[in-house]
Amino acid sequence: MSGGASLRLIGDYVAPMDEALSVHSPGFVDVTDGRVAACGPLSGAPLPPDGAVVSNVGGLVMPGMINGHAHSAMTVLRGAGEGLPLERWLSEVVWPREGRLDPDDVEVGMMIGAAEMLRNGVTTSNEMYFFPEAVAAGVARAGMRAIVGIAIIEGLARFGTPEAQLEAGVALRERTLGNPLVEIALGPHSGYNLGDDTLRSIRDEAIARDMLIHIHVAETPTEGDAVTARTGRTVPEHLDDLGLLDARVLAAHGVWLTESDMRLFAARGVGVAHCPGSNGKLASGIAPVRSMRAAGVPVAVSTDGPASNDNLDVLEEARLALLFARLRDGDAAALGVSDALHMITREAAAALGRNDLGSLEEGRAADVIRIDLDRPEYEPIRSPSDVLGLLVWAGSSRDVTDVWVAGEHVVDSGVVTTLPLDDIRAAGRRIADRIAG
Amino acid sequence: MSGGASLRLIGDYVAPMDEALSVHSPGFVDVTDGRVAACGPLSGAPLPPDGAVVSNVGGLVMPGMINGHAHSAMTVLRGAGEGLPLERWLSEVVWPREGRLDPDDVEVGMMIGAAEMLRNGVTTSNEMYFFPEAVAAGVARAGMRAIVGIAIIEGLARFGTPEAQLEAGVALRERTLGNPLVEIALGPHSGYNLGDDTLRSIRDEAIARDMLIHIHVAETPTEGDAVTARTGRTVPEHLDDLGLLDARVLAAHGVWLTESDMRLFAARGVGVAHCPGSNGKLASGIAPVRSMRAAGVPVAVSTDGPASNDNLDVLEEARLALLFARLRDGDAAALGVSDALHMITREAAAALGRNDLGSLEEGRAADVIRIDLDRPEYEPIRSPSDVLGLLVWAGSSRDVTDVWVAGEHVVDSGVVTTLPLDDIRAAGRRIADRIAG
Repeated sequence: MSGGASLRLIGDYVAPMDEALSVHSPGFVDVTDGRVAACGPLSGAPLPPDGAVVSNVGGLVMPGMINGHAHSAMTVLRGAGEGLPLERWLSEVVWPREGRLDPDDVEVGMMIGAAEMLRNGVTTSNEMYFFPEAVAAGVARAGMRAIVGIAIIEGLARFGTPEAQLEAGVALRERTLGNPLVEIALGPHSGYNLGDDTLRSIRDEAIARDMLIHIHVAETPTEGDAVTARTGRTVPEHLDDLGLLDARVLAAHGVWLTESDMRLFAARGVGVAHCPGSNGKLASGIAPVRSMRAAGVPVAVSTDGPASNDNLDVLEEARLALLFARLRDGDAAALGVSDALHMITREAAAALGRNDLGSLEEGRAADVIRIDLDRPEYEPIRSPSDVLGLLVWAGSSRDVTDVWVAGEHVVDSGVVTTLPLDDIRAAGRRIADRIAG
Repeated sequence: MSGGASLRLIGDYVAPMDEALSVHSPGFVDVTDGRVAACGPLSGAPLPPDGAVVSNVGGLVMPGMINGHAHSAMTVLRGAGEGLPLERWLSEVVWPREGRLDPDDVEVGMMIGAAEMLRNGVTTSNEMYFFPEAVAAGVARAGMRAIVGIAIIEGLARFGTPEAQLEAGVALRERTLGNPLVEIALGPHSGYNLGDDTLRSIRDEAIARDMLIHIHVAETPTEGDAVTARTGRTVPEHLDDLGLLDARVLAAHGVWLTESDMRLFAARGVGVAHCPGSNGKLASGIAPVRSMRAAGVPVAVSTDGPASNDNLDVLEEARLALLFARLRDGDAAALGVSDALHMITREAAAALGRNDLGSLEEGRAADVIRIDLDRPEYEPIRSPSDVLGLLVWAGSSRDVTDVWVAGEHVVDSGVVTTLPLDDIRAAGRRIADRIAG
């Protein structure tokens, strides 16, 4: 079906992920021109859009999930160096292999990641990696939605100066403007890796062109020590001194933000991508998600790259976010089901400055998923809202069967319709062998 | 196929979960009379057992997982009271509903839980609940293996005195001796709930009959305060003073064990069931798993009941165990893939004193699962051992397709063959409605 066609989906339960977390049972979603035309309870629904294909899909229908921070092309590095300590894993395994990647490899890696995310019900990912044109090509072939950040990093000679990387990113953005599924962002690695002049240039370009800045912040307790020694400021304060936080900014990790940093982020409208699985696997710590949100910072629960997670399963991360927050605070009320669902849908969209995504409210993108509830884990459902708690605490992204992006049916009964998955996986295996050296 | 028949399973990868974590690719498992007759690489395999049915199942073949601590009949309470603070959840939701359960309800709840566990690749569960005869009947109908602990608790008038509960448990054990799948254990709730004389009687019966004692220990930091005030001892020390640790003992939780408690457990051969998901959801804390194991205590990674988890997914718990240990210690080397796999198979068996389970070594029970690897999450596999890390970090119990218990094929291509699942789920819904009052 083309994105221009109209569609009515009917689910046993439809959770639009509105502010109140309504669940309509049964419910409907109408799609026209790739956007939500209407959503609500089936009883009292308007006539379907003229010419609409009506599909009674059953199960739970909700918006596609949003991944706020990922390096998905790293699927070709997944599992490599398992068991090595962090420093050796990076220096002996990850960096040498990344140094052997070319753009075609990155496109394949991204397609594998996109296939995995789509099957897991993730319809938008905020990506950051080398060869962003290849990342954009991979997500475009998958028919997935993405924000593609051009990595800007100091010290990798093969990519030229940070200024050259910035220039290439801006040029890519101009070439990509016509693609409704792909937005190009600027991905300065971090406030400690890049010099002040570079960060100011990035800020200027981002504001001039309304580009998202996607940057790592406060992943480890010591990464900002040199900045603080030089400036007397935390890294977030330093970024604000440079004016960078006046742009649209998504800060990845935020594990070691101070209370004052959080207030600053809230004042500047900075969103945070919270990556509990990666932060746990690498022993980075537990981000103060409850405090961030109390300060007014929108949070997107995210996977990080598949080399440090090792999957791209946003629903799993949502459950981890609840568990970690409760352990951090020693309080079973620290975060709950509604928080988890918001942080993978509408609040994640807000964190990215993309309020056209993340819920099935009229006018937003028709990125929709259908989850099969025919498993013991989803028993008992005594009232429609029960389904939300069961999904977060007992469910699995493996139960996603169907996915639509901008109204296109890209996963049909568990099969990704847009990609030749066997070929891509075989290519991924060849790349993994080659880069192992 | 009857348990007396012979079988050869051939997998693309066969991980017997031996001490060295071998992976044979391709590999085989021979089953005779419900036990493993041989297991190894297919090249150089002996002739299959005479009359064996040979089945080339592909995928990853490994022993069924072991759940070291569960109250699985609580599936009928799953999700109830979601979002309430702990005290209100217990007093307003859980306890009143449990008070309305009868034995038939518990049998249904256990069958739902058994179906869920089997589909998730769990072939043995160490259970503790009211109406243990109903629990035993439920697992027997599912064709699952279980240790069924009779809950012994002070203060619930409907179940009579603890002494009466003990007597009923011993009688049930005598009636169940002929059942090869069900072992009856004694389930004293805790060292702080029961009086010294009762605990001594339980100890005497357990030792006289070689029954496992399954008991909650150190789930919260304050639960043992009264015992310590009265005796000057930690609860584990108090249990040892009563001689209880001379029996075969599985201590559930162990979140707040002292270093000295761990040494005591190691000296007495006590195993611990570690329940990271439940301990996180209820904000109980993170058990010192690395220290326990360093002291010599075998650990079984476990789900606890589905009212505080909310699923019965042992593989998910294994991943949580790694993440939690790394966060607790701030050390990415705290626990790794081999630890996780041992703690859901052979080490879990050791923690339960059941070295007839938990690996595909000759003579052990033929409890076998097959996992489908045809998903992007299992890419790339460059050497056979990679599959183990991918399973733990990126995989899902949803990918289990086939399960054999004592050589019986109880899950066939995702379908539980032993139970009328639709009927049971409908019965579970009726029970959930009725006990909500």
